[in-house]
Amino acid sequence: MHTETIEAQGHLIDSHLLEAVFDKVIEHGAKFEIVKFQIGRTNEEFSHLVMKVHAPEAAVMEELLEELLALGCHRLEQTDALVRPCDADGCAPEDFYSTTNHRTEVRHNGKWITVQRQRMDSAIVVHDGQAACVKLRDLRAGDKVVCGAGGLRVLPDFKERERSGFAFMSSEVSSERRVELAAGRVAELLRGVRAENKRAVVVAGPVVVHTGAADKLAALVREGYVGALLAGNALAVHDAELALFGTSLGMHLERGVMAEHGHRNHMRAINLVRRAGGIRAAVETGLLKQGILYECVRRGVPFVLAGSIRDDGPMPETVTDMLQAQNLYAEHLRDAALILCLGTMLHSIGTANMVPSWIPLVAVDINPAVVTKIADRGSSQTIGLVTDVGLFLHLLHTMLK
Amino acid sequence: MHTETIEAQGHLIDSHLLEAVFDKVIEHGAKFEIVKFQIGRTNEEFSHLVMKVHAPEAAVMEELLEELLALGCHRLEQTDALVRPCDADGCAPEDFYSTTNHRTEVRHNGKWITVQRQRMDSAIVVHDGQAACVKLRDLRAGDKVVCGAGGLRVLPDFKERERSGFAFMSSEVSSERRVELAAGRVAELLRGVRAENKRAVVVAGPVVVHTGAADKLAALVREGYVGALLAGNALAVHDAELALFGTSLGMHLERGVMAEHGHRNHMRAINLVRRAGGIRAAVETGLLKQGILYECVRRGVPFVLAGSIRDDGPMPETVTDMLQAQNLYAEHLRDAALILCLGTMLHSIGTANMVPSWIPLVAVDINPAVVTKIADRGSSQTIGLVTDVGLFLHLLHTMLK
Amino acid sequence: MHTETIEAQGHLIDSHLLEAVFDKVIEHGAKFEIVKFQIGRTNEEFSHLVMKVHAPEAAVMEELLEELLALGCHRLEQTDALVRPCDADGCAPEDFYSTTNHRTEVRHNGKWITVQRQRMDSAIVVHDGQAACVKLRDLRAGDKVVCGAGGLRVLPDFKERERSGFAFMSSEVSSERRVELAAGRVAELLRGVRAENKRAVVVAGPVVVHTGAADKLAALVREGYVGALLAGNALAVHDAELALFGTSLGMHLERGVMAEHGHRNHMRAINLVRRAGGIRAAVETGLLKQGILYECVRRGVPFVLAGSIRDDGPMPETVTDMLQAQNLYAEHLRDAALILCLGTMLHSIGTANMVPSWIPLVAVDINPAVVTKIADRGSSQTIGLVTDVGLFLHLLHTMLK
Amino acid sequence: MHTETIEAQGHLIDSHLLEAVFDKVIEHGAKFEIVKFQIGRTNEEFSHLVMKVHAPEAAVMEELLEELLALGCHRLEQTDALVRPCDADGCAPEDFYSTTNHRTEVRHNGKWITVQRQRMDSAIVVHDGQAACVKLRDLRAGDKVVCGAGGLRVLPDFKERERSGFAFMSSEVSSERRVELAAGRVAELLRGVRAENKRAVVVAGPVVVHTGAADKLAALVREGYVGALLAGNALAVHDAELALFGTSLGMHLERGVMAEHGHRNHMRAINLVRRAGGIRAAVETGLLKQGILYECVRRGVPFVLAGSIRDDGPMPETVTDMLQAQNLYAEHLRDAALILCLGTMLHSIGTANMVPSWIPLVAVDINPAVVTKIADRGSSQTIGLVTDVGLFLHLLHTMLK
Repeated sequence: MHTETIEAQGHLIDSHLLEAVFDKVIEHGAKFEIVKFQIGRTNEEFSHLVMKVHAPEAAVMEELLEELLALGCHRLEQTDALVRPCDADGCAPEDFYSTTNHRTEVRHNGKWITVQRQRMDSAIVVHDGQAACVKLRDLRAGDKVVCGAGGLRVLPDFKERERSGFAFMSSEVSSERRVELAAGRVAELLRGVRAENKRAVVVAGPVVVHTGAADKLAALVREGYVGALLAGNALAVHDAELALFGTSLGMHLERGVMAEHGHRNHMRAINLVRRAGGIRAAVETGLLKQGILYECVRRGVPFVLAGSIRDDGPMPETVTDMLQAQNLYAEHLRDAALILCLGTMLHSIGTANMVPSWIPLVAVDINPAVVTKIADRGSSQTIGLVTDVGLFLHLLHTMLK
Repeated sequence: MHTETIEAQGHLIDSHLLEAVFDKVIEHGAKFEIVKFQIGRTNEEFSHLVMKVHAPEAAVMEELLEELLALGCHRLEQTDALVRPCDADGCAPEDFYSTTNHRTEVRHNGKWITVQRQRMDSAIVVHDGQAACVKLRDLRAGDKVVCGAGGLRVLPDFKERERSGFAFMSSEVSSERRVELAAGRVAELLRGVRAENKRAVVVAGPVVVHTGAADKLAALVREGYVGALLAGNALAVHDAELALFGTSLGMHLERGVMAEHGHRNHMRAINLVRRAGGIRAAVETGLLKQGILYECVRRGVPFVLAGSIRDDGPMPETVTDMLQAQNLYAEHLRDAALILCLGTMLHSIGTANMVPSWIPLVAVDINPAVVTKIADRGSSQTIGLVTDVGLFLHLLHTMLK
Repeated sequence: MHTETIEAQGHLIDSHLLEAVFDKVIEHGAKFEIVKFQIGRTNEEFSHLVMKVHAPEAAVMEELLEELLALGCHRLEQTDALVRPCDADGCAPEDFYSTTNHRTEVRHNGKWITVQRQRMDSAIVVHDGQAACVKLRDLRAGDKVVCGAGGLRVLPDFKERERSGFAFMSSEVSSERRVELAAGRVAELLRGVRAENKRAVVVAGPVVVHTGAADKLAALVREGYVGALLAGNALAVHDAELALFGTSLGMHLERGVMAEHGHRNHMRAINLVRRAGGIRAAVETGLLKQGILYECVRRGVPFVLAGSIRDDGPMPETVTDMLQAQNLYAEHLRDAALILCLGTMLHSIGTANMVPSWIPLVAVDINPAVVTKIADRGSSQTIGLVTDVGLFLHLLHTMLK
Repeated sequence: MHTETIEAQGHLIDSHLLEAVFDKVIEHGAKFEIVKFQIGRTNEEFSHLVMKVHAPEAAVMEELLEELLALGCHRLEQTDALVRPCDADGCAPEDFYSTTNHRTEVRHNGKWITVQRQRMDSAIVVHDGQAACVKLRDLRAGDKVVCGAGGLRVLPDFKERERSGFAFMSSEVSSERRVELAAGRVAELLRGVRAENKRAVVVAGPVVVHTGAADKLAALVREGYVGALLAGNALAVHDAELALFGTSLGMHLERGVMAEHGHRNHMRAINLVRRAGGIRAAVETGLLKQGILYECVRRGVPFVLAGSIRDDGPMPETVTDMLQAQNLYAEHLRDAALILCLGTMLHSIGTANMVPSWIPLVAVDINPAVVTKIADRGSSQTIGLVTDVGLFLHLLHTMLK
């Protein structure tokens, strides 16, 4: 039997942390013994746990310790993190520590330092007394990468019990909820972000256009609520189709009848924008006179259009290389104060992967499976709303007036 | 080979009738030969088909003729319908003709008479020169029931091409549509029905309350847009819970936090209404001061609450016998000019089964499978909207102002 | 400020109990102070909590205490439960205690007695030194009903960590899971139940027939795995349609083409069974020669067919009064050792409402929303599987061989 | 009033063509007058339509004619197609004809020539007596592009009535169907394709791995049923995770418990494969010993992994540029005899966009919305199955034995 003593400090009862700790130990065929558990006597006080873990093998213990790290537990005994150099570009040592999206600290030269650019599924590179998340593909030979579970501390986020509006919203995914309350709360957040000159990032799919809410999202951009727009080629295509022909998927949004050119309007829109030299050029030459991207161009709101295997065109501004697109997304997300995901699973999950757990993210989709999947980032700062994206944007815009 | 000559008249190209006719013939291993097909030269003109059908066996031919009836085809040769007496209460002769929901005529004593109380899945009883749909369980020994496919004409409904608003709405089920247009059209229909002193029947599930739209449906009742309300026990329970405690499923709808008594408020609401002697009594004694059913009672709008296997309570007004509940539903649907189904599969399908195909029915649900299932009644008068029921009612109410 | 001291004992960390306790206190605007918390030092040991709660008003405190009861907390000071007589049939005193589905004890004459026939949403009647759950409508004037939250103890169920097969299955609802493992576990449970001569109750919707698995469920009945079948009228109708005509919803299940009589076969099946005098009679006369209900009749497996507002017919055995249908369901569920719900939200929720939390219930449906709703009974004994009901039954039957 | 005479020939009643023709005319505010309609007298005979269309404006007429083309109608008067040179790379003349996925012919120098590489949303370039579909981005200045609707004939595909197995499968999307029949038909198709040395292309998402069917798809590859595999980075990641660690999303597929390293196993798998130099290298060095891609490498079955914004890693073989990925997909789809899409909306829609309507495509997904969307390519050769992907592959593999 191998034994280790671990400790954890924080709001351990909340967010199922303590329960998850016990589950992990049992799942590994290990046993636990509580040495000390001091519960926070009030809602504000931290709890403190010291626990012995007995595992049948050293390898299992090593794995278990790594798992427990993500739940806020670390070895009682403090040692520096193990650091190994990369032996080749683009990949890490075999036992590299793969990050979560929670605040992480590394012990290096006897000091705890906070990891920069926290995101999930990265390696941690230590350099010059600093530590930062680096994706596997960005590692370079010689980079010093944190390996194993020692010398690390992870601080999972805690439920904020007092913010009742949020408490409501963060509860389980369901279409049987009053959307107005949530929309009201999102409006409040957006107003706060704008007032503080922070950045709200909107991640949007073409369903925003199909459901007739393009003018509402355009208004949010025009009125200064959107700090950056992350989307795909399709949003730009359908936004341009609507601006140029008044149709979406060939349907006249104002009259509800199928359009003259049916589904082909989107190809004509792509062709016209390509001929103009791109979206920005099309705004400048006066071809595009309205729409979501028109407002972005006019107001100087940055946008990134990521390509995909199902794209038509694409629009000239579409970034067709995914590594570059991910880098651009990540850049605009860096100091986001709020992320609002509207009707797109692909781009929303891509976005959720890039940001630390403490940035609030609101995901709106009519399909509960999509909302569940996005909410899976395991953060109490993620709010899922199962509702009609078009009607939600209408309501939100009304509430922002 | 058995051969029959059939004819059909009407807008045969529309609504896939002609295609379906050919499919049926082929599926039965039969063959067809067009004797004459005169196509309507304009959108208004009828088409006229005369066709020979060759089937391998008499039984197959008989079956095929019955199937073709529902598609508007009948034997060229006109004979009276075969009528047999029931030999026992509650069941029909083995070869009874089972109705569709389309307009049907029976040839009796050399005259074509229109079937009364048209609905699907019934027998047709001929009596005193009249014909009417009668459910199996309502047949009495001696009733003269139409058997086989002879002497019958069915007139499937045709697509109304000119009503573009409707054309839009009746297109395929999808959440990627602009709901505002549809809501606007429903508002227009409701206004028209009220102006003409006709009856719009609302079929509603408890999700109307959970999504925070109880006050909007209550307002529709108060403002005279609702001619009758068909629902289940649960709607009444949650409406009363909201009226008495401000909660729905234990959630404070105004504040978004879980209520003091959690999920148990609905049991307290049931108990209080039972103690009062029922919903009507609770309105009269002043216990209930608001809500959907409060407005129904105050305005004299009839309501039927059908019981189900999952009911709590039930509320005193709930009709727990299903045969009686079906009869009451059917009675209030008799001269409905519009049916609006909100967030309930069970009661909506029950309702759709009871009404002829020509009564317009709008089904709103966030789950596309529900909308698809209701729309399955095979009528161009059925419109499915995949959207958030709560937000839809808000929008509808705003548009009715 | 009003203050009470409460205690709880058990696996408090598991199943989020402790977290939920803290949440409830904060949501009520109350505060807590931990007097003592002794954590179970190993997986087997209980934890023990003593906590002071400060609430701003007496009414809030009373409500909070009732809420905390459901989470396993009770007043430290032991008093008898308050018991009031009913003043009228069919309803309880206003402050009656509404039950959960967890094991509950009542303190009466200084002794703790276990409540019989535990189910949710009932009153507790004390009589002759015994206590039992009684539905509101079954209360009679003079019955002594437990009121308030005093003198009650609730024992929420705990996660069974060692049963790893189950642990897997009870995790969150998702279609992205390996169904074979779960099917294997269900097969194991069914075999165990049969070997011990206990009763597995199957709750089934007509989708079992539509997806081509009627013969598999029939085989389970024939082979003695099914102790009772709870369903609706539609299951019997489609089972008979298949047995008599080889079709389901008018589709030939063996050949995959639409049947001769299309959707009308179900009406012919109903009529034939009604003419025969019912399902049992139809088996005896040889009209029905196969199917799920045929096997039930042959093997003497009891079945209950509950009516609903959307029924055709109904079949003679269908119980059209919902109060009676609920009583019959409850009777057959009384000593169930396992409940298997297959493709029906209505009957599954009805069933889940009737049984205590400690009876294992497996819910299988292709729609995640249905599985989520059934799993909502808040029991670690509920397992949801999002998969194809037809393919699941095939797999299950293969595994039982 | 502008008037044109158009004609159409073929199975016009089938697939709603004639109905759609009339709808289009009315939607444009135009009128029609049937000059001649000769219906096919038997199932085999073509119908022949000559119709006058009256439109209020020349522009409307031009648009209408283009719309009618896609429905198989063309001007009675035969003229050469209008051809204009591109004035710049990567975009077409403004009035370019945007293709459908149906067989198309262009009249050039008085001869009708068939368009090569037919796919939707392309331009048609005429060169050297040949015509071919070319995507906008692949156009070069000077390319001669077909413009307007003249000199074009489109031949929509017709329903094959005799193939009853297919008829069943191509009917509406529903989870209430017997999957075995469809699986049997797919098995038959796969066997036929293999026997004739043709190419079946499988498009697969990671849910194949999560639902425990990786070994079944691997077996299909090994047994020669798969001609090419089109997927994304995630399939390769989870396939490698399973091969290396026995887990999928951190869940032990054999034991059903969460894995030692939880969700991080997928990052370790990526890192190991990257260190090995890629999937092919990992098979050669013996790191990868099983799995879907292992079998592809061993058997020489080509695979394309398209990147996306949500990728981790990526795997070295992942094609991160979308234009290149689309080109590779299209190349492997060129002479596909069958396409089988398993649990991925993104790649399935990408694929469906690239192929002509006459290549059979089977789409399997547990989410009906996904199946509906893929089936939207408007081809009677598309079959949607709403079922559990894992269980479907099991069944399919059993049927192929």
